[in-house]
Order: sequence, then structure tokens, then C-alpha cells
Amino acid sequence: MKLIRFGEPGFEKPGVILNDGKRIDVSAFEADFDEQFFGSEGPERLESWLESNASGCPVIDSEVRLGSPIIRPSKIVCIGLNYAKHAEESGMAKPNEPVLFFKSTSAIVGPNDDLVIPRGSKKTDWEVELAVVIGKKASYVEEENAMSHVAGYVLHNDYSERAFQLEREGQWVKGKSNDTFAPLGPFLATQDEIEDPHNLNLWLKVNGEMMQNSNTNDLIFKIPHLVSYVSQFMTLLPGDVISTGTPFGVGLGLNPQRYLKHGDVVELGIDGLGTSKQHVKAYEMIMANEN
Amino acid sequence: MKLIRFGEPGFEKPGVILNDGKRIDVSAFEADFDEQFFGSEGPERLESWLESNASGCPVIDSEVRLGSPIIRPSKIVCIGLNYAKHAEESGMAKPNEPVLFFKSTSAIVGPNDDLVIPRGSKKTDWEVELAVVIGKKASYVEEENAMSHVAGYVLHNDYSERAFQLEREGQWVKGKSNDTFAPLGPFLATQDEIEDPHNLNLWLKVNGEMMQNSNTNDLIFKIPHLVSYVSQFMTLLPGDVISTGTPFGVGLGLNPQRYLKHGDVVELGIDGLGTSKQHVKAYEMIMANEN
Repeated sequence: MKLIRFGEPGFEKPGVILNDGKRIDVSAFEADFDEQFFGSEGPERLESWLESNASGCPVIDSEVRLGSPIIRPSKIVCIGLNYAKHAEESGMAKPNEPVLFFKSTSAIVGPNDDLVIPRGSKKTDWEVELAVVIGKKASYVEEENAMSHVAGYVLHNDYSERAFQLEREGQWVKGKSNDTFAPLGPFLATQDEIEDPHNLNLWLKVNGEMMQNSNTNDLIFKIPHLVSYVSQFMTLLPGDVISTGTPFGVGLGLNPQRYLKHGDVVELGIDGLGTSKQHVKAYEMIMANEN
Repeated sequence: MKLIRFGEPGFEKPGVILNDGKRIDVSAFEADFDEQFFGSEGPERLESWLESNASGCPVIDSEVRLGSPIIRPSKIVCIGLNYAKHAEESGMAKPNEPVLFFKSTSAIVGPNDDLVIPRGSKKTDWEVELAVVIGKKASYVEEENAMSHVAGYVLHNDYSERAFQLEREGQWVKGKSNDTFAPLGPFLATQDEIEDPHNLNLWLKVNGEMMQNSNTNDLIFKIPHLVSYVSQFMTLLPGDVISTGTPFGVGLGLNPQRYLKHGDVVELGIDGLGTSKQHVKAYEMIMANEN
């Protein structure tokens, strides 16, 4: 099943993309895609509800905006340096165990919303990532049971301000949490939709030029290990996101380094998880246009 | 006004401590202390509602458990090394600008709930902190307006696992986010209750022995600066927490270092914000008793 949320920011409704590509409004199911939904076998219940109710659900207009397919969760846990070549381009050693950092959940936006370059930023960078959404509360989970705690997968662009992240007195969160820095979607694919999450091409283009082009088979730490590992340090709640890290090809790693500027267009995708597209706007330009 | 939440974990109701110390159930106000409440001038509305309704509110039994006085917010932003002597004992330089890190909101518990030492932990440490609760959404806020975005203050013990934080492949969040690592309360004091948040004694004892004993007048970066500073990197939502850092006297800084063990009792307090007390339980002991 492919879950979406659609409508104006803050007023999104839940929907589903059917196998034939038709997008339907499932508001009548009376649950949105939040902690409560994922924590109570919502996807399974919705799937069986659809068997008898899908035909009566309104079709969503193709022009309607998509929001994040999940409601703001309790946390986004990101995995740092989880592709060997990306660790290298970042000038950091390949880690012996997963590097964890948080991204603010207030950074979440829809898949095709504008990316806003923060005030004063000169080093806003892209990072295509496969994100995992938790289905069942996970605390001290063993690797062999980890996948039963996963609801599904979603495309994520883990935007990063490199000066804020690396040159401003420590802890990466400072460069990961600005508004619009976490476009999620277009849809959440439930686990059954993805045959092998460790064999998916993922790519990102800036203004049509391919910048990242890799495959999740290059992940240093695989998904069952990540879910188990994170759950040793904190409880993962239903709806929580683990973003598995980005491959080689970010702006930080180029020579010379290259960062986003007002007017750029970023497109990205992962096999089976669709594509998203963000138009880049500088905060100062938005303010100037408003005044 | 002093806001509390009381009742069994997950089923807390909102309450208020009146000036005479009486604790009343304000469920009849029909709002709990969440983002929606703080973001809609909830404290002001509750205060005026109390003028005509306080006498009809049920008194809370003195035996009832307190929960965190705020519902799980979108984020807890912690300030690292914000007391000069603590930076020194941690073996780190005094920062040139605030060091930010996140603590998982799933770590929040009531002020007197047990502290659970995580599985395999040998370095669980204490940190008494003054935490600021955001009242009004804050994005690119100037320092001179920052205090109008503050709802109030709360006592926080920023428990930290030093091996997880410092010896496990980077990013402090790993040692800050375990369940029970963020006891908040006993109450949230609205801003008007605290004459000068930069002149409050704060202290922490382990098994009756004074370990931390300082004053918020030693804060390197003051509250208006912190609110303004954080808001340059992310949007602070109503109910969000900024924990302002801990003073000298944590276990990491002792010679030899000293960490919490099963059976220890931690007590802490801040002038005007009450006291809290956590009994220390080791995860392994809890599991052994359950089996």
C-alpha cells in the first residue's frame, strides 16, 4: 500500500495510491497517519477497510499538493556516514558503529514544497536518503526481530547546512533542522511493496545534472541493524523515522564545493518510492518579495 | 501560575498549584498543556478562567503521581557547556557560541519517576538544569523580543550516559535520549512567577550528598540570547523546551569519576521551581524482578 497525505499545509488529509495509480481520499477511514495509526496496526486495518470501501472514496485531483505522508513524529533519527564513499568525501573515517544525530521534526515538509535556504546560509547542501518509518514501538529490539517493527519506507532529502553543521561549535543538529530541510514523500510504501530495501537505486539531480547516483546495497549498516542499534539508546515510537544516510555526491564533497542557490531545482528518487522535486528559494529573497 | 499534570503515566490530567499550595484538577478547562494550549495564549486564558472556576475544581490527592507538566513537545533543545566551570570539568573549551544538541522527547517522564540505567550502561550521570518552555512560535527572533516567546520555566534533570555520549562514534544524542532521561517538573512556572531567571540557585544531591550547587547567574549564554540563537537554526514551536545547561559537579568531572548505580537516590531543585527526586533502577535489575 502507498500512503499519502494531501491538501494545504497544516490541513492535509490521508489518502492512498491504488495499484492502478489512482489516488483516493481515505478520510472516511477516520484515521490520519500518526503514532496512533501506526501503533494500532493502522496500515493492516486500512488495507482491509479498502477492500469494501475503496470504490466509494473520492478521487484526488491531480493538481492537489502532497504533504509529508506521515504526521510529525516524535523524532527523526539520522544515520551519519553510512555509505563508505560519502564518509570519504566528507573527510571523515568510516564509522565502526552507526553515527546517530537528530533532525528537528519541525523541518518536515511535503515532497515538492520549496526548499528555503536559511538566512545567511552559504552552504546549503542536498542528501538523498532512504528513510524507514517505524510501525511498532521498539526498545532493545534484536536484529532478527527488527523488521517486524518497520511500517515502511519513504524518500527523504536530508538537507544540510554545512557551515551550521560543521563550523559553528559542534553537534550537527544545528545544520540539519531548519524549516523545509526534511521533505518526505511522495508516499510511504508499506514494507510489502519493496522486495529488497537493500537493492534500490537512489539518485539526486540539481538543475538536471546528476549529482548522486548510487544503490542502497552500498549501505554500511543495514536496516535491521539500524533499527536494533537505535533501539538500544532510545525507544522508537510508531511513526518515528530513521533516515539511513546519504551516498557519495553531495556538494560538500565536490572540488570546488558547490552549494544551492536561489532558483536551483533539486530532483531526487528511489526505486519503488517515487520522486520529489524542490525549488530552491533564499530566505532573503522571500522576505524581499513579501515586503 | 504553576501548571502540573497528574495521574498514571499516559493518562495524566492538567492541574494547577494555587498560591496557597493547594493543587486542583483543571480538566474542566478542557485543554491539556500541549502545543495548541501554549500557542493560543492558554496560560492567560486558564488564569482568567480560574478566577471564576477555581473554587469548583476538585482538589488533587496529595498521594497522586505527577507527570511532566507539559505534554511531549516537538523537541527538547539542550545547550551544552553553558557554565564555564562545567565546560572545564568536561575537558572541553568554553564555547564561543551556544553548543546545541537534541534530547529525545520519548525520554520525558514525571519529576519523581524512577531513573532507569540503560542496559549495559556504566556511566549514567546527572545534570540539574533550568529548562525554558516556549510559549509562542519563534523563528528568527531578535534577542530583545525573545522573552515574549517564553511561556515559563521548569526543573529538568538532563540525565546523560557518558560512554554512549562520548565514546560511541560521535554525536551526543546517543547518550541523552534513553527512556526516563528527562524528568521534567514538578511544575511549570509561568514567566511572571520568576523574578529573575538569571539569579536562581540550583542544586543536586546523590544519596543526600551535595554534588551540584550553583546559580543561574553563572550561565555563559543567557535565556534571551539562547531563544534568539536557537531560532536562527530552527523554528521553536509552542511547548518546545530549551534546557539551558548544567553547572559544575557532574559525575564525569569528579576524580575518580562517579556514576549512578541501582539504589541511588537523586534529588534536585531550583529556586522557585520546586524539587524532584528520582530513585535509580538498573534495567537489568528491573528485568530480573519481572522474570
